Amino acid sequence: MAGNSFGTIFRLTTFGESHGAGVGGIVDGCPAGLKLDFEAIQRELDRRRPGQSALTTPRDESDRVEFLSGIFEGVTTGSPIAFLIANKDHRSKDYDDLKNVFRPSHADFTWQSKYGHRDHRGSGRASARETVSRVAAGAIAKQLLQTLAISVHAIVSSVAEASIAVPITSFDLSQPENELRCPHPETAEQMRSLIEEARSQGDTLGGIITCIVKGAPVGLGEPVFDKLHAELGKAMLSINAVKGFEIGSGFAAAGMRGSKHNDEFAVSEGKTITKTNHSGGIQGGISNGMDIEMRIAFKPVSSIATAQNTVDISGDATTISIQGRHDPCVLPRAVPIVEAMAALVIADHYLRQRTSEL
Amino acid sequence: MAGNSFGTIFRLTTFGESHGAGVGGIVDGCPAGLKLDFEAIQRELDRRRPGQSALTTPRDESDRVEFLSGIFEGVTTGSPIAFLIANKDHRSKDYDDLKNVFRPSHADFTWQSKYGHRDHRGSGRASARETVSRVAAGAIAKQLLQTLAISVHAIVSSVAEASIAVPITSFDLSQPENELRCPHPETAEQMRSLIEEARSQGDTLGGIITCIVKGAPVGLGEPVFDKLHAELGKAMLSINAVKGFEIGSGFAAAGMRGSKHNDEFAVSEGKTITKTNHSGGIQGGISNGMDIEMRIAFKPVSSIATAQNTVDISGDATTISIQGRHDPCVLPRAVPIVEAMAALVIADHYLRQRTSEL
Amino acid sequence: MAGNSFGTIFRLTTFGESHGAGVGGIVDGCPAGLKLDFEAIQRELDRRRPGQSALTTPRDESDRVEFLSGIFEGVTTGSPIAFLIANKDHRSKDYDDLKNVFRPSHADFTWQSKYGHRDHRGSGRASARETVSRVAAGAIAKQLLQTLAISVHAIVSSVAEASIAVPITSFDLSQPENELRCPHPETAEQMRSLIEEARSQGDTLGGIITCIVKGAPVGLGEPVFDKLHAELGKAMLSINAVKGFEIGSGFAAAGMRGSKHNDEFAVSEGKTITKTNHSGGIQGGISNGMDIEMRIAFKPVSSIATAQNTVDISGDATTISIQGRHDPCVLPRAVPIVEAMAALVIADHYLRQRTSEL
Amino acid sequence: MAGNSFGTIFRLTTFGESHGAGVGGIVDGCPAGLKLDFEAIQRELDRRRPGQSALTTPRDESDRVEFLSGIFEGVTTGSPIAFLIANKDHRSKDYDDLKNVFRPSHADFTWQSKYGHRDHRGSGRASARETVSRVAAGAIAKQLLQTLAISVHAIVSSVAEASIAVPITSFDLSQPENELRCPHPETAEQMRSLIEEARSQGDTLGGIITCIVKGAPVGLGEPVFDKLHAELGKAMLSINAVKGFEIGSGFAAAGMRGSKHNDEFAVSEGKTITKTNHSGGIQGGISNGMDIEMRIAFKPVSSIATAQNTVDISGDATTISIQGRHDPCVLPRAVPIVEAMAALVIADHYLRQRTSEL
Repeated sequence: MAGNSFGTIFRLTTFGESHGAGVGGIVDGCPAGLKLDFEAIQRELDRRRPGQSALTTPRDESDRVEFLSGIFEGVTTGSPIAFLIANKDHRSKDYDDLKNVFRPSHADFTWQSKYGHRDHRGSGRASARETVSRVAAGAIAKQLLQTLAISVHAIVSSVAEASIAVPITSFDLSQPENELRCPHPETAEQMRSLIEEARSQGDTLGGIITCIVKGAPVGLGEPVFDKLHAELGKAMLSINAVKGFEIGSGFAAAGMRGSKHNDEFAVSEGKTITKTNHSGGIQGGISNGMDIEMRIAFKPVSSIATAQNTVDISGDATTISIQGRHDPCVLPRAVPIVEAMAALVIADHYLRQRTSEL
Repeated sequence: MAGNSFGTIFRLTTFGESHGAGVGGIVDGCPAGLKLDFEAIQRELDRRRPGQSALTTPRDESDRVEFLSGIFEGVTTGSPIAFLIANKDHRSKDYDDLKNVFRPSHADFTWQSKYGHRDHRGSGRASARETVSRVAAGAIAKQLLQTLAISVHAIVSSVAEASIAVPITSFDLSQPENELRCPHPETAEQMRSLIEEARSQGDTLGGIITCIVKGAPVGLGEPVFDKLHAELGKAMLSINAVKGFEIGSGFAAAGMRGSKHNDEFAVSEGKTITKTNHSGGIQGGISNGMDIEMRIAFKPVSSIATAQNTVDISGDATTISIQGRHDPCVLPRAVPIVEAMAALVIADHYLRQRTSEL
Repeated sequence: MAGNSFGTIFRLTTFGESHGAGVGGIVDGCPAGLKLDFEAIQRELDRRRPGQSALTTPRDESDRVEFLSGIFEGVTTGSPIAFLIANKDHRSKDYDDLKNVFRPSHADFTWQSKYGHRDHRGSGRASARETVSRVAAGAIAKQLLQTLAISVHAIVSSVAEASIAVPITSFDLSQPENELRCPHPETAEQMRSLIEEARSQGDTLGGIITCIVKGAPVGLGEPVFDKLHAELGKAMLSINAVKGFEIGSGFAAAGMRGSKHNDEFAVSEGKTITKTNHSGGIQGGISNGMDIEMRIAFKPVSSIATAQNTVDISGDATTISIQGRHDPCVLPRAVPIVEAMAALVIADHYLRQRTSEL
Repeated sequence: MAGNSFGTIFRLTTFGESHGAGVGGIVDGCPAGLKLDFEAIQRELDRRRPGQSALTTPRDESDRVEFLSGIFEGVTTGSPIAFLIANKDHRSKDYDDLKNVFRPSHADFTWQSKYGHRDHRGSGRASARETVSRVAAGAIAKQLLQTLAISVHAIVSSVAEASIAVPITSFDLSQPENELRCPHPETAEQMRSLIEEARSQGDTLGGIITCIVKGAPVGLGEPVFDKLHAELGKAMLSINAVKGFEIGSGFAAAGMRGSKHNDEFAVSEGKTITKTNHSGGIQGGISNGMDIEMRIAFKPVSSIATAQNTVDISGDATTISIQGRHDPCVLPRAVPIVEAMAALVIADHYLRQRTSEL
């Protein structure tokens, strides 16, 4: 059973390779009656687009999304929404010498072994180009959530050694974002220096994205296996280059006492709230009405310019130096992807929640 | 759509509450022809059993698993395998005063809000008693994996401040485990002291479990959404009290350069291997034949004896002191649960992989 | 991927063999807050029970259903509802000589070939005993539908040559049913004679069940693949011995002109209705508010007392005469099974429908 | 949960409306390594194409299928296969006066009621144009089956009163088909006359398609709910205008005795076969190696030229005469659709069967 679908009720199935005709997907299960703002969808794609700044890959894709179905007079009909983003600037030739050599920490070797027959051009389906479809579908999910006053925001909270020291809740996330998508200007500048330095060295950098969902009602999440944070975790870990996921206190919780970690309940304006939020907005796998907070760790991009030892398709040792147009650090471009995945999970669970009571 | 099933081909559906008739489940999709070792299954349940040592809750459950179907003459038939573990030592009375008060960082408030009607006795379905069913099903999965020479091992690598400093691969995991399930004797003793201290203070401790899968073939995992580590992450995050998940280098990857993080390929005994294993055995969401390594962070148990501020079902502020029989630290008992979830994921993906090529 | 689950939101997973510990299942996705009438559930099981009349198999099973979870103080909690019906009167010895011989038109040969390892006692999981679990789950679905004023009724409309000539809508289905579950007394008597004759001859009879769903709202059914009648068809065809399914006009439609077959719309008491109901209450795969009508064809039971030619497990020709306790005609006992499957489909689609509009 | 996906492992998700940009779909789960014959795929689409003969609608669609992903150098890669068939000859204006009036026995009323917001042009998603996607995906499934020497054939066995009297097995189905897709020339001529007559009268005709699957191995089908004929039944009943489904003896079984109906086993060329085939190639829901035979009943198309009483969107009585380009009888064009759905089910179950034994 292949794995190209995500979600149960609000369900996305994607397709497409880096250097084929294009990428796209089908959203099945979007309720009828949602008026779509197509410019807002395109804006999300633009936030992920390569070539948007000096810090990203120069691959030039306009990434215009075309909707093929499921929308009539600008409003969803309840029928499947298919969309297509054509590939434009693919220089397949760049990849000819990668055909028979496995790039270290890339998906070449495992895809070749699993499927036998592989589209090696630009990594084929293993390329992060696949995530365009997530952003397009996530933009629809975001608009569904907007009707419920739920919003999703992500920021770059660290790049290599440069980290924001204050919590995400200290920022006004409605403000325009900068190129780094880091709302703390000094840290953003540090990040920029580190990225430029890495690029000049033919190296790459990892980092952390922090994501917050505001306005989610109490009750989202389906115990015991489809706990809300388990589904968010899967969503994030399915993004290329992600190596870790935390909800609320995360790994820090491992070093804490229960007496410190517990979030005491209180009443505020007639609503039950918690005074602290180590739970990250989720208790027992179900949202509790507080901000849902998570952190996602990205490894450095594996495509580096320096020479590496590796093995070729015949099992012989060789070396490789990867040319081509790669990001020295994907974090800023990954922000809309993280938001999209969060929006898909929340929209799906909002619909799932509709059937929990008589 | 409720969330009590896990897996796609090897698929577990569980049921049961802490203080009802019992807990159990159905495994659908276990291939026919697997000879079961029932004592080995029971041993796994015994590893998770309450009351097994002075460090755990004194609740006394024999946790004998009874198989109801799907097995004939000791061998699986391909039909669904149902099993039941009766509840014995439930003192429902202990919970009467918790009926209308929400315990901080517990699932009381969210379950009550989501479903309206709730079995409050011993947390009902939100209780970690639910995980017995995972262990029983996971034990079957382990035996399936055994026929493929795949093994799953987990250890307690930290409890509060006590942490093993060496990698999990430095231990001989075939040796008998101690009470702490920590293979490093000095650290184990530290953990014991910390747990005894916490118990005497009516407090609780968090910690980290490290899990390793050995012998997995190249090719498991279904891009793009059902990447192997994404499914492992969901599996682990669905366990009570888990707040974080890492694969391979995990959060440490965020601070690394690509030139350091990349796992160079090499040939060893005719097999393609990687010299380092920052990938944690998974590249592009597909197993690469190396050890699959992950770390799972547990928060401290929320049931503490000291008084806490909270809110009752009518929305009024009140305080609560939780009596009853709770673990000061669940890490040792969580080891077989982590192993079970890993085994379920790997078994499922082994079967899914059977259809990837013509 | 095994096939022991049915439904998407209101989802039943069953287990159990004819001569094992028992049969049962888990209903996941039943909304919280449904007050259950346990006697009504048992009454449904009694309608299916063997030994209930002189016309059925004398196998004596009390078929008492025991609920294990998901219910608190008589009301569903939203957690999975597990139930168990123990097997009592199984004379496994009766089946010893069937171990190695394939009964004609039975599932012996195909199960043996598919799984290799088979519980042959009383057909194991291929036995119609499995349908008890459907009736138990269907009884819960019926009670969910009752809260919506939807009811499901089935009758035996033909046994061999004995057929009711008038439509099902001519009967008052709220009246108590007779032993034959045929509301037309003269036809019922004919059926009784035919069944008694068949039994005395060691033979068996087929027949047709007609089922009607009253009160279903407009809008149930999910085009394009999960059309309401497609799901009803699958539900019915999954019952042992079913060979055909019709909705509305069914096979008769094949001989009709559009001008005769079309159901003209009209307004009645402010509601849009159709003047005729060739559509059987479903148009374009979605319920239109009229009665949902279907017919289900059952073959004669394959277990007959007379000698038949067959083949044994080694591939050698042999003969067989089947002893044991079998129904000469399953139609009357199949009525509650048909109703159960219809109720499961309608309940599931009622819940699915909750997410079709914003 | 919407219903635009079909199959579990070999899984098709479709999209598209009659008068939108186009129709298409994604096949996920097709194994890697299948060499595709694109001309053969196009030939299947041509068999379904409107305007192919004087007997069909004159709507002119070239129905060229474009593949967007999942194929590299003509061979499947294991990644999702997306395809698109553009809409060309849609005269949306034709439908303007149908915007607010419900056509009798059409899906207008139910779709409007279910979703609130509806693309009324050419029935939108309720149009049989949707079935192009099934034929395209089914053509891939057919090629997968071909590698296993399994073939699928369907014929028109009746149109209104014109019926073939001999069994489908009497024909050599490898011969080229005629315009009627009825291999019995005299009956085909009768059908032609009836269709021409109906057209001249502005009326439409129903009929029956018989489908046979040859070469299926023993063991396909997943008891208890996903029995092979239950899944075939759902597949066929999901096609527009289908009202009934029979496997093997079908409704005739209802009138038979077990002693006549049972298929005795015999050995032929070392293989276990049955002497008769009332079972239609399936016993206990699992294929037994004989021909799989089924019959599918189609109602007459609901779009007729004569005036009919109906109701408009405001609930007022009115009349309607449907203009536009409609088939007087869809049976010949439905043959490739029936074959496609059968191929999808068999391909899916062939893959599902790969996991039934250790």
